[in-house]
Amino acid sequence: MIPTIRDHRSVRNFETGRTIPEELVERLLEAAVRASTVGNMQLYSIVITPAGSPVFGELSPCHFNQPAATGAGLLATFCADVHRFSQWCRQRGAEPGYDNLQWFVNGAIDALLASQNFSLEAEANGLGICYLGTTTYNAADIVRILRLPRGVVPVTTVAVGYPAEPLPGLTDRLPLEAVVHRETYRDYAPEEIDRLWAAREASDETARLLAENDLPNLARIFTERRYTTVDNLHFSQAYLDVLRAQGLFEFELKEPSEK
Amino acid sequence: MIPTIRDHRSVRNFETGRTIPEELVERLLEAAVRASTVGNMQLYSIVITPAGSPVFGELSPCHFNQPAATGAGLLATFCADVHRFSQWCRQRGAEPGYDNLQWFVNGAIDALLASQNFSLEAEANGLGICYLGTTTYNAADIVRILRLPRGVVPVTTVAVGYPAEPLPGLTDRLPLEAVVHRETYRDYAPEEIDRLWAAREASDETARLLAENDLPNLARIFTERRYTTVDNLHFSQAYLDVLRAQGLFEFELKEPSEK
Repeated sequence: MIPTIRDHRSVRNFETGRTIPEELVERLLEAAVRASTVGNMQLYSIVITPAGSPVFGELSPCHFNQPAATGAGLLATFCADVHRFSQWCRQRGAEPGYDNLQWFVNGAIDALLASQNFSLEAEANGLGICYLGTTTYNAADIVRILRLPRGVVPVTTVAVGYPAEPLPGLTDRLPLEAVVHRETYRDYAPEEIDRLWAAREASDETARLLAENDLPNLARIFTERRYTTVDNLHFSQAYLDVLRAQGLFEFELKEPSEK
Repeated sequence: MIPTIRDHRSVRNFETGRTIPEELVERLLEAAVRASTVGNMQLYSIVITPAGSPVFGELSPCHFNQPAATGAGLLATFCADVHRFSQWCRQRGAEPGYDNLQWFVNGAIDALLASQNFSLEAEANGLGICYLGTTTYNAADIVRILRLPRGVVPVTTVAVGYPAEPLPGLTDRLPLEAVVHRETYRDYAPEEIDRLWAAREASDETARLLAENDLPNLARIFTERRYTTVDNLHFSQAYLDVLRAQGLFEFELKEPSEK
């Protein structure tokens, strides 16, 4: 396996104050743009915000001031972007029709494939990375802070820095057969679900979390502590509001009530 | 730069009839699951459909029978999947609240990062790949053919096979500064747009396309031939219908009319 892929772990503790040289940042960006992109339209933008800049400080609360965000050498915000391509079209007398869900998804695909190339290249050069899922929670604030124009929506952020030793271990994963299906999707029998999660549920880490959270099982830590329904609905509505405000949801031909 | 990243090009012509050994498929899948995933929840599934299976033939029209799809050794359909995780929660008496946009986006992020690892590992082992953007156009058919349960939505497909020689050249990209912004987004002046697209617009490939399409510029090939507004709106509505039918858009707290 490609060693960088094999050895990936998310790094959340960085050497503070250590700057990433500009030539290295350029190399990560060059790797990012080699990724596949829908129709070679490059429907994404990458905003690089280095530690120490005022904007970096403004972004931290958007990521709940988690150490991976506050301690990083830079934050790379990957955005779906139909604005640049649409502007080119308009300058050529071509009428762009890209303000809709399909194109948000196209842009998100582009942004995410580029982000993974960027992250792997960072790791291959001795840097550590952490994806910040908070990007889609607080997207409206990020739009404002990064001054994203209509047509541009943040999808993910990669925090990059020099890892503080020691590196964390590899993250455990479900057995491969949990996520892989052959020919068609085969649904899971209850006992298969039990088997797939057995190792994780029996781990020392889970025992520690249960004691810490005073809950009887790991699943309830996810549903009652980490990702509650109230939060999920709130952030879903917030992200939809951002898609609408940024003009990437301008298409509803029919509402559910009309069906 | 990681050589596999540097040398990526989409391959659309494969050696027909050459099977990808199962051990190699396993290696690509092992690479896929090493990618970062939101909260280590692995909110995605990968459906591997090998050439020659009846389902492979059914999938081809979903991808408009393009040679990259019909000639591939296998199709790997990457899906956002909150079904498996929700089922685990329910079996543990935990109430999952994952049937909403935020979780579709989380699952899509997971699926796309995994797909890029999968693709790079394929290329590192002498295979060629092509992402099939058609996945989000004809998602309803793919849901039916792959028997995706509620909670699972296809996001992208990677066609994989042994490249027929000769390999295509690297795809041209816009200059790096087109997609990169420093600190915050800086908008594009009209003359900057002209400059960024100048090389592509002056290329032999563009001259060939203009002659072939009888249109005055490249932008109009995109808006009038490749991605028309009518199609974009149609496929946006179709994908939203799939999100709703698969239970990943069950959250609308307010409709635009109420704002």
